[in-house]
Amino acid sequence: MLFKVEMTVRLPATMPVAEAEALKTTEREVAQGLMRQGRWRHLWRVAGRYANVSIFDVDSVEQLHQLLSGLPLFPYMDIDVAPLCRHPSSIRDDDR
Amino acid sequence: MLFKVEMTVRLPATMPVAEAEALKTTEREVAQGLMRQGRWRHLWRVAGRYANVSIFDVDSVEQLHQLLSGLPLFPYMDIDVAPLCRHPSSIRDDDR
Amino acid sequence: MLFKVEMTVRLPATMPVAEAEALKTTEREVAQGLMRQGRWRHLWRVAGRYANVSIFDVDSVEQLHQLLSGLPLFPYMDIDVAPLCRHPSSIRDDDR
Amino acid sequence: MLFKVEMTVRLPATMPVAEAEALKTTEREVAQGLMRQGRWRHLWRVAGRYANVSIFDVDSVEQLHQLLSGLPLFPYMDIDVAPLCRHPSSIRDDDR
Amino acid sequence: MLFKVEMTVRLPATMPVAEAEALKTTEREVAQGLMRQGRWRHLWRVAGRYANVSIFDVDSVEQLHQLLSGLPLFPYMDIDVAPLCRHPSSIRDDDR
Amino acid sequence: MLFKVEMTVRLPATMPVAEAEALKTTEREVAQGLMRQGRWRHLWRVAGRYANVSIFDVDSVEQLHQLLSGLPLFPYMDIDVAPLCRHPSSIRDDDR
Amino acid sequence: MLFKVEMTVRLPATMPVAEAEALKTTEREVAQGLMRQGRWRHLWRVAGRYANVSIFDVDSVEQLHQLLSGLPLFPYMDIDVAPLCRHPSSIRDDDR
Amino acid sequence: MLFKVEMTVRLPATMPVAEAEALKTTEREVAQGLMRQGRWRHLWRVAGRYANVSIFDVDSVEQLHQLLSGLPLFPYMDIDVAPLCRHPSSIRDDDR
Amino acid sequence: MLFKVEMTVRLPATMPVAEAEALKTTEREVAQGLMRQGRWRHLWRVAGRYANVSIFDVDSVEQLHQLLSGLPLFPYMDIDVAPLCRHPSSIRDDDR
Amino acid sequence: MLFKVEMTVRLPATMPVAEAEALKTTEREVAQGLMRQGRWRHLWRVAGRYANVSIFDVDSVEQLHQLLSGLPLFPYMDIDVAPLCRHPSSIRDDDR
Repeated sequence: MLFKVEMTVRLPATMPVAEAEALKTTEREVAQGLMRQGRWRHLWRVAGRYANVSIFDVDSVEQLHQLLSGLPLFPYMDIDVAPLCRHPSSIRDDDR
Repeated sequence: MLFKVEMTVRLPATMPVAEAEALKTTEREVAQGLMRQGRWRHLWRVAGRYANVSIFDVDSVEQLHQLLSGLPLFPYMDIDVAPLCRHPSSIRDDDR
Repeated sequence: MLFKVEMTVRLPATMPVAEAEALKTTEREVAQGLMRQGRWRHLWRVAGRYANVSIFDVDSVEQLHQLLSGLPLFPYMDIDVAPLCRHPSSIRDDDR
Repeated sequence: MLFKVEMTVRLPATMPVAEAEALKTTEREVAQGLMRQGRWRHLWRVAGRYANVSIFDVDSVEQLHQLLSGLPLFPYMDIDVAPLCRHPSSIRDDDR
Repeated sequence: MLFKVEMTVRLPATMPVAEAEALKTTEREVAQGLMRQGRWRHLWRVAGRYANVSIFDVDSVEQLHQLLSGLPLFPYMDIDVAPLCRHPSSIRDDDR
Repeated sequence: MLFKVEMTVRLPATMPVAEAEALKTTEREVAQGLMRQGRWRHLWRVAGRYANVSIFDVDSVEQLHQLLSGLPLFPYMDIDVAPLCRHPSSIRDDDR
Repeated sequence: MLFKVEMTVRLPATMPVAEAEALKTTEREVAQGLMRQGRWRHLWRVAGRYANVSIFDVDSVEQLHQLLSGLPLFPYMDIDVAPLCRHPSSIRDDDR
Repeated sequence: MLFKVEMTVRLPATMPVAEAEALKTTEREVAQGLMRQGRWRHLWRVAGRYANVSIFDVDSVEQLHQLLSGLPLFPYMDIDVAPLCRHPSSIRDDDR
Repeated sequence: MLFKVEMTVRLPATMPVAEAEALKTTEREVAQGLMRQGRWRHLWRVAGRYANVSIFDVDSVEQLHQLLSGLPLFPYMDIDVAPLCRHPSSIRDDDR
Repeated sequence: MLFKVEMTVRLPATMPVAEAEALKTTEREVAQGLMRQGRWRHLWRVAGRYANVSIFDVDSVEQLHQLLSGLPLFPYMDIDVAPLCRHPSSIRDDDR
């Protein structure tokens, strides 16, 4: 079951550089783990922004929230979620 | 080169049903042709809306505009385009 | 799996009264059928508006879109969907 | 008398973790007390956000404001209230 | 129980003048009836707009919706409702 | 001459509690003085928000601004002003 | 007493040219009459828009609404009103 | 050449009172100098806000930006600029 | 003197195709004439929209408004104007 | 390949003046380097704002993001990107 998730990161200006770097490193590890499991199916950077467009493939809304709220950067992100489904014109089997 | 394209269709209430159906049929054929060529890489329906989220893979902005403005439903759509690029955390080779 | 769905109805001023009444009658029948099946779990009127707040309980996003796009008033509604999940503070077993 | 209440929590980045945890614990106790009394009738988490959608059942607007402004997290929440009433198509007796 | 109600009237450009005048006359009669009953407690014109700011005093949200949806101009109005309650600094007994 | 004034209070998270309490106490005294003079004609709390809806009755815009900018909480409020006038359908003599 | 008034004209696409021209001619006469009386103190065109920025000098909000609602183009304008008063730094005697 | 300029001042809550007062005093001197030169032609306070509506009369956009960016409060203001020109219905010679 | 002008074209659905084509042809001729005179300095299509981003080089705001309001498509365009000036970091002589 | 890029700079009020100056100096050097390479093709200041309108000419979205995210002020800017292409009415060879 697919969801489009758009995340914009807003780190506080007062956060020490080392803390920010540590957060980003852990975020990356967590993200890559989820990608390997197939849960975080697509991940793109939005040009010119500290933001991404993602496609999540989950078994339930519950699971989606657990994955998103477990991200190290979660407290510093604006997240927008849109539920997606198969488009009748799509010819691609994995777009569902 | 990837672009996220979000299209919302707004057909005028005065359009005859047959005209609308013909438009949608042609739209579908054009869309599937572009998908077969790999230009319209992903296509999902947004749940609860006459709208889609798409990923286009084009050689240039010029080409993107030609494809979008050539869609039969183009005059009746609100279209929003965001340029995407590879995310440093992505592990998927085709997300670019 | 729960989704909050907010629907605002905007019938065109040019629609004949009889057509509007027929649409509303069918809408009501379809809605009550879905409520009896437990899919349309809650349905409230927003005071002062031709709009509702609803909670849908579905097996998938796919099913949600099929139910919504099959409503007789679908072409005349602005629909906003938000995926919900169990709140850790909730004590009510059926709020999931 | 029912009201849809949407709450988004925005804790200041400078709040010490212990203070935030204490606030959340008390918030949970207060919320569960109101749920046991039937005042806070439904409570759902919005997927991907530190936010909830709730249904309150109160005797008056006065009482609604007292309950909301008495929540420990009240000073840190954006709250949006919409008055609801029975929908003519509803078949569920408790949706009022 | 008080509610602030803001109504903006948008008559379609195609409505015949006589029909619009008849609607406004009936609206006025209904409004004055509600004012005499004390339900429509205050009514002001917003300068420069075909809009009003009103205070309704009702027994329930249900009653509020019945009054508003029964107005002859209801199908042509954007209506915004905000629930009000007594302000702790107010010294006026009837502001509740 | 009447104006609808909507005030939303946003105290900085860093303001000491005692300072905030002192401000609120003075605000209340000033507000009640203006109510006794008939300048601040109505004052209601918006349910679920640290905000109010008010009706001011002043001799001039100049006087309105002096009253508002003299409020102790003025530096911490978002204020929205709408000029009102007698509605042709009103039957209440003091709604002007 | 001064008010900034911003008007944007939106004539329906279906209005016959002659009717539109007649409306504009009358509007101009009415506007110039108000300017001669000193009520419509300033009038500027916003570059690139069928819109204006105006300053009205009136005795009351009541009078302001009568002037604006009496304009021939009133039914076709979006009007935004902001009450102005003398700025403490102004050195110009007539800016009040 | 005229421009409508709307300025909203947002001083940080952490700015010492003395620094704020000094800034405002200098701002006033600079503003009055520009008014004496005829560059800052009109200046009004928006009722209920720490904001103004101004009309600038400059030789070029370049000059406008130099004047605005040279204001002592410039770093703390949201500024909105709209180019104005003579309105065909205006009868006032200096409204250009 | 430079202005960024963004134009979005919204032709009414009821306009006959021939009329639309004639308008676009004339628009093109007028636009190219202004480009040859150097007034319409840059003109780009926004990808995916019936819209453009333009840079105008004019002697005055007056002239800008005359050029824009003289465009054949002017009644059908939403136009947004922003005054530009030389950027201190620019190394390009003609960016002014 | 062209992109319109609008950047608004928001330096935190707490940043020491020397740090801000150093950032701006480096930003200027980097910007001028990109202009010399032809990547940052146009750069204008928006009158009255600490903001610019720019045209970038890049080989790919990837390159655009690298250039923008490498700017010293990147962490303090709101950036908005719109892909542009040749307009059919343009007569200027370099507007592509």
